[in-house]
Amino acid sequence: MKLIGGGVCAAKGFSASGVHCGIRKNRIKKDLALVYSEVRANAAAVYTTNLVKGAPLLVTKQHLTDGKAQAVICNSGNANTCNADGIEIAERMSALTADALNILADDIVVASTGVIGQPLNLDPIAAGIPELVRTLSANADGALSAAEAIMTTDTAVKEVAVSFTINGVECKLGGMAKGSGMIHPNMATMLVFLTTDCAISTAMLQKALSSDICNTFNMISIDGDTSTNDMVTVLANGMAGNDEICTDGESFETFMKALNTVTVQLCRMIAGDGEGATKLLECVVDGADSVECAKTVAKSVICSSLLKAAMFGADANWGRVLCAIGYSGADVDISKVGVSFRSAKGTVHVCEKGAGVPFSEEQAKEILLENEIEILVTLGDGSCGATAWGCDLTYDYVKINGDYRT
Amino acid sequence: MKLIGGGVCAAKGFSASGVHCGIRKNRIKKDLALVYSEVRANAAAVYTTNLVKGAPLLVTKQHLTDGKAQAVICNSGNANTCNADGIEIAERMSALTADALNILADDIVVASTGVIGQPLNLDPIAAGIPELVRTLSANADGALSAAEAIMTTDTAVKEVAVSFTINGVECKLGGMAKGSGMIHPNMATMLVFLTTDCAISTAMLQKALSSDICNTFNMISIDGDTSTNDMVTVLANGMAGNDEICTDGESFETFMKALNTVTVQLCRMIAGDGEGATKLLECVVDGADSVECAKTVAKSVICSSLLKAAMFGADANWGRVLCAIGYSGADVDISKVGVSFRSAKGTVHVCEKGAGVPFSEEQAKEILLENEIEILVTLGDGSCGATAWGCDLTYDYVKINGDYRT
Repeated sequence: MKLIGGGVCAAKGFSASGVHCGIRKNRIKKDLALVYSEVRANAAAVYTTNLVKGAPLLVTKQHLTDGKAQAVICNSGNANTCNADGIEIAERMSALTADALNILADDIVVASTGVIGQPLNLDPIAAGIPELVRTLSANADGALSAAEAIMTTDTAVKEVAVSFTINGVECKLGGMAKGSGMIHPNMATMLVFLTTDCAISTAMLQKALSSDICNTFNMISIDGDTSTNDMVTVLANGMAGNDEICTDGESFETFMKALNTVTVQLCRMIAGDGEGATKLLECVVDGADSVECAKTVAKSVICSSLLKAAMFGADANWGRVLCAIGYSGADVDISKVGVSFRSAKGTVHVCEKGAGVPFSEEQAKEILLENEIEILVTLGDGSCGATAWGCDLTYDYVKINGDYRT
Repeated sequence: MKLIGGGVCAAKGFSASGVHCGIRKNRIKKDLALVYSEVRANAAAVYTTNLVKGAPLLVTKQHLTDGKAQAVICNSGNANTCNADGIEIAERMSALTADALNILADDIVVASTGVIGQPLNLDPIAAGIPELVRTLSANADGALSAAEAIMTTDTAVKEVAVSFTINGVECKLGGMAKGSGMIHPNMATMLVFLTTDCAISTAMLQKALSSDICNTFNMISIDGDTSTNDMVTVLANGMAGNDEICTDGESFETFMKALNTVTVQLCRMIAGDGEGATKLLECVVDGADSVECAKTVAKSVICSSLLKAAMFGADANWGRVLCAIGYSGADVDISKVGVSFRSAKGTVHVCEKGAGVPFSEEQAKEILLENEIEILVTLGDGSCGATAWGCDLTYDYVKINGDYRT
């Protein structure tokens, strides 16, 4: 397994592009992305559990009932959610894309991200699609353009890819993500598009994705708000030429590992680039009597506004970690809990058996001033663990969201 | 029923005081409060459900097993939580207070609020108690001093009182609260001390309190963090001279109404003075098919960081209201949902049947620039309703909590 470049274009047969079509007023911000596979691919997806679901998500779900897809069209700047004509717009967006690519509309994954509840004008999209198709590129620049075009308040492009070997055949798997705010996945997640040339059946692809997100995208929280438009899709076009993975076994395990490598990196990127964030927070829990307990604790810590604000201030306020464990709902014996903070500058142990231990405030400050912080929690109850990712709560989160829409 | 002055000293036989004893470095900030009843009172309480519980809370719970209390001692500046000697300190704090008042230590409600996980030094408390006892006053200034001494990052004193009549006998009920941050009650709540001269049995007093908080303190959220030290206690000393309320009936209903009048006002004060808050948010849900559904929706809306930030920016971003309803877990038909924003400047209707309706952004801005905002949600599914209280998310929340401890 090795990390490579190329994002969604790393895998054989995939090309991508991104353009500014005019949904956003800012002309230098791309707002329409296309990912295309030379051949029809097996496709799997997971969706937000929010009862309010973006129209594009409903249309995509419909399109993927046959387990096949060949392209992804995604705009930023408008979520096409809570609009009376949303479904119609998403269907027309698919049809326009399919026509331009000469493929079936039913093979289009359609997605939108941005403001909820404002009508999405199809005109700029219709005008932009021919340019998207014309500029499709199988190189890293194509992937980058697409990754840029799906960004909203993201400050950094999020793409990752790996190469791996299935029975001696080299395969690749890559992806791009749009993160930022309204992120608190619940059996689903934000916008993530994954592509692979590995041959794998739709059923096994869905199994891999559904299993993976439980430990990756469902373990992120930026702000506790589960989005209406979250989805993760993966397209597998089989062009690597390996024997198709149709059952559990070594090849499936290898594929799972490749998938997990990409998704964990995307999770870290999404969390570290949360709206207004200055730091990536990673809560690593071990010593739990069940994985579920470890996950509950890790997510509760990552979601605490008070802890997030303390991390912004590089304040080793471990009482807030204990408080968040205490209200998490997990069955924990607080008198056994230990807490440390770790970063590139070292580790400081701050709490043992549920009570404070003396530590150097100076050293703690130095550790917490770094931009990647691990919050290590030991529960002393067993051998299960879990990791959750989040970010600090900052002035800029408030600023961005105090006037996002107007 | 009428609103009166006097806070915790409004009811007959109660006196109170507050002093700076030295727990806090800031000498002009009072940090130790005492409330005293001339006679032993029936007492009821509810406590935080956080597994991490402040030591004073555990000691108070023990003291109230006989349903009686006569005084409240409460310090601010240190929560006496997650300290190895916490229980011992809380017990000694009770004993010192009891000695000075010449009452039983078992009749003391002891409470602490402030930083978690720092040893609480008993010396300043021991030094302050004699002064507290000496300055006890049954007038409004005594109540005010006590209410000031329990404040942490609160910016305003929180006290309310009412007078009401039970079978022709005038009774009074008053209270004080400490709010601010780490507020997301879960079957319990922040620090609230209530006093009444109404004669009511311990059992009925507990019944009234336990029932009332479900619609009041459990419907507030400042930041989603359930505190380790939350509690509400009520002392009823019977000195008004009414026949003791021992059963359900008209008198109990009157008492419940008086209690609710006081607690709703305290809720509004706590929410409106949330850490860093510039606005009180009140989410009023109706048309639900059950009270539980209405409560779930109202709390989800009030807790959304994205909506809270939008309210700070006076941005009528109703999509965030719908989003929060969608992920609340309540079984709601989104296609029937309506949303309006209301303040002293008027009402603006922004969403009908789950989709946007045209509205004047200018008018919406004017309405949302007020400091008390109602978010009105209609579900169109029945006739049940609920109200939840919260506040906006501001730069100051981040500032206060980025460096609260050091």
